[in-house]
Amino acid sequence: MKIAVLGGDGYCGWATALYLSKKGHEVAIVDNFVRRLWDHELGAQTLTPILPLSDRLRIWKDRSGKNIESFVGDITDYQFLDAFMKEFAPEAVVHFAEQRSAPYSMIDRQHAVATQVNNVVGTLNLLFAIRENNPNCHIVKLGTMGEYGTPNIDIEEGYIEIEHNGRKDMLPFPKQPGSFYHLSKVHDSHNMMFTCRIWKLRATDLNQGVVYGTVTDETLLDEGLINRLDYDEVFGTVLNRFCVQAAVGHPLTVYGKGGQTRGFLDIRDTVRCIELACLNPANPGECRVYNQFTEQFSVLDLAKLVQTAAKKLGLKTEIDHLPDPRVEMESHYYNAKHSKLVDLGLQPHLLSDSLLDSLVNIAIEYRERVDQSLFLPRVNWRNATNERRKPVNTAAGASV
Amino acid sequence: MKIAVLGGDGYCGWATALYLSKKGHEVAIVDNFVRRLWDHELGAQTLTPILPLSDRLRIWKDRSGKNIESFVGDITDYQFLDAFMKEFAPEAVVHFAEQRSAPYSMIDRQHAVATQVNNVVGTLNLLFAIRENNPNCHIVKLGTMGEYGTPNIDIEEGYIEIEHNGRKDMLPFPKQPGSFYHLSKVHDSHNMMFTCRIWKLRATDLNQGVVYGTVTDETLLDEGLINRLDYDEVFGTVLNRFCVQAAVGHPLTVYGKGGQTRGFLDIRDTVRCIELACLNPANPGECRVYNQFTEQFSVLDLAKLVQTAAKKLGLKTEIDHLPDPRVEMESHYYNAKHSKLVDLGLQPHLLSDSLLDSLVNIAIEYRERVDQSLFLPRVNWRNATNERRKPVNTAAGASV
Repeated sequence: MKIAVLGGDGYCGWATALYLSKKGHEVAIVDNFVRRLWDHELGAQTLTPILPLSDRLRIWKDRSGKNIESFVGDITDYQFLDAFMKEFAPEAVVHFAEQRSAPYSMIDRQHAVATQVNNVVGTLNLLFAIRENNPNCHIVKLGTMGEYGTPNIDIEEGYIEIEHNGRKDMLPFPKQPGSFYHLSKVHDSHNMMFTCRIWKLRATDLNQGVVYGTVTDETLLDEGLINRLDYDEVFGTVLNRFCVQAAVGHPLTVYGKGGQTRGFLDIRDTVRCIELACLNPANPGECRVYNQFTEQFSVLDLAKLVQTAAKKLGLKTEIDHLPDPRVEMESHYYNAKHSKLVDLGLQPHLLSDSLLDSLVNIAIEYRERVDQSLFLPRVNWRNATNERRKPVNTAAGASV
Repeated sequence: MKIAVLGGDGYCGWATALYLSKKGHEVAIVDNFVRRLWDHELGAQTLTPILPLSDRLRIWKDRSGKNIESFVGDITDYQFLDAFMKEFAPEAVVHFAEQRSAPYSMIDRQHAVATQVNNVVGTLNLLFAIRENNPNCHIVKLGTMGEYGTPNIDIEEGYIEIEHNGRKDMLPFPKQPGSFYHLSKVHDSHNMMFTCRIWKLRATDLNQGVVYGTVTDETLLDEGLINRLDYDEVFGTVLNRFCVQAAVGHPLTVYGKGGQTRGFLDIRDTVRCIELACLNPANPGECRVYNQFTEQFSVLDLAKLVQTAAKKLGLKTEIDHLPDPRVEMESHYYNAKHSKLVDLGLQPHLLSDSLLDSLVNIAIEYRERVDQSLFLPRVNWRNATNERRKPVNTAAGASV
């Protein structure tokens, strides 16, 4: 199958592109490297030393014998995207090409606006490019479980049948996103649903949980294929950050009580879910929604699991409860359905001791690269402006 | 009360600014005149000859003795908006400053993107400007009944209690908007609801129905205060367009069967609803939603009412059923609640023969200004690109 991976130089995108290539698909990566730019802006870098995309692709070719084409550009530039769609003519487009950090979107007005404009315009451009070039092309769009928020009822996969005053309808599940980033994904979902209706496009909206891990079978082939692993407060997702904190002896930074419960999945399942969606496309006019995660955990559950795993490796780990920089419930009901990808054949990699061991060991391997000042939250949801350019207090968070 | 009217040079904004000024409020208008620019782009003009804002305001001062300040600028320019908020320091901001036409947003990709970026960024800027300058200032934001679409259940005012698998929650009413414009309002609603939650802002989201009429007590004071009346396929709302068509002997352009049912209100009620919302502000942290319309009609109902009213004036009017250029249901269930503004004291001007007479008579008065080629729909929802720049077939739609 001919599959385009937009944002294929990023964390999930890179792993996905390699996996799809390995499985025999003809893969093209589209990326403008803005994720690498944001690292520079934030003074952060991935724990793992990633190579430039051109080097990565050369090594992949050497190791696997397979070619991945790369197209360098920004999908908010329609002329570029349109030319790409004409040249590569994909059967499926996997769309990871968005600003994906909630804290980044909450830094200040400029970051909120930049996030929403980037994500909304990129996705609108993609919908138009597919409509104009090949309406049969299947869009596999990354959404987020964060679109739903934490309602006091079970979360369904995208739609819910509502009975009201004696009448019934199947309607989009109400959304209560928790950051300007999560809001941008809600905007995308509404836009995409609409274009499926008016233009009979085919779309799968994957409401993904929080991803953990970094290693996949493909990235293991060569150190030059290593995937990024973010541990900073802005782009580092919680379990990855905890493992890096454990590796360097920093307390695990739990926000508030840690009762915040979310869906999680291993990056090895992300790549499989994407392929399952591609191989089983939505029908014309269908905008289907899958909840893409495998297990629910509270943040405190995860901290305790990491603490236990670290102990086996001889590390003593403390858990710090910091004031929650986000505006969110610290304990709440949470039960989200996630059976549709399993129905398509997903066999989950559940969170295991061996995964935690491996993740902590990777963090130990690259511990000289850790800047501990990046662990602590500096973006507070309650502020309209968070100053991240101030010099960091090196006494409190010196580099190792 | 100190009230800012963003978009105060437009159709609803102008009537609202005058009404609020008449009622003794201290009013400022913010506008960048882009609505007038869109007329030039589309080769259209309001039926009624409106004066430049500076002239309008001078005449208002002469006639009423009241001053309305004007601030010329674009709210997507944060520096301008921030300076305005500091200088005028409003207690309430009425936000009409958006691209408000569904067909305009459906012309092509550029218009879709421009509509969403303009509306989303303008509203985000306003939310930040209020947060930064005066979090106590009440936002009265114009939404649209079109955010809900046409679900098969009763439409509530913004929120619905859902019982699901034995649990209950009060959640945002699911949205199924029908154009890129309506989508932009859904995006705004989500953004606004979020900032009320995290920053304790006060907001009222007025999901307005289709407005008709043009005359208010205030605009009647002087011909120079006349309000705009759009009849073209892009900005002309349905009842206004029908009245102008009847006045010039053009068949009423019903799309499809005409069973599309929507909420409607008289512009004299728009202005009262706005004042009621301002006088009864939302609480800090509250994002309340009012459905702002007074009666439901199907499009065919309206066509028949106009036909009857025109007959009394000696006009013979035909009804044409054109292929529906929109993707929408031509007959459907529709029952939308609208009691909250009545609870605050709204006494509706229901649609009457005298209103229709008056509207048709205004159209007759200015009939030399009617360009009949602007009646027929040229923006089809099914196309990704609608060419509006092609020369019009003057044989089919010559100017009178």
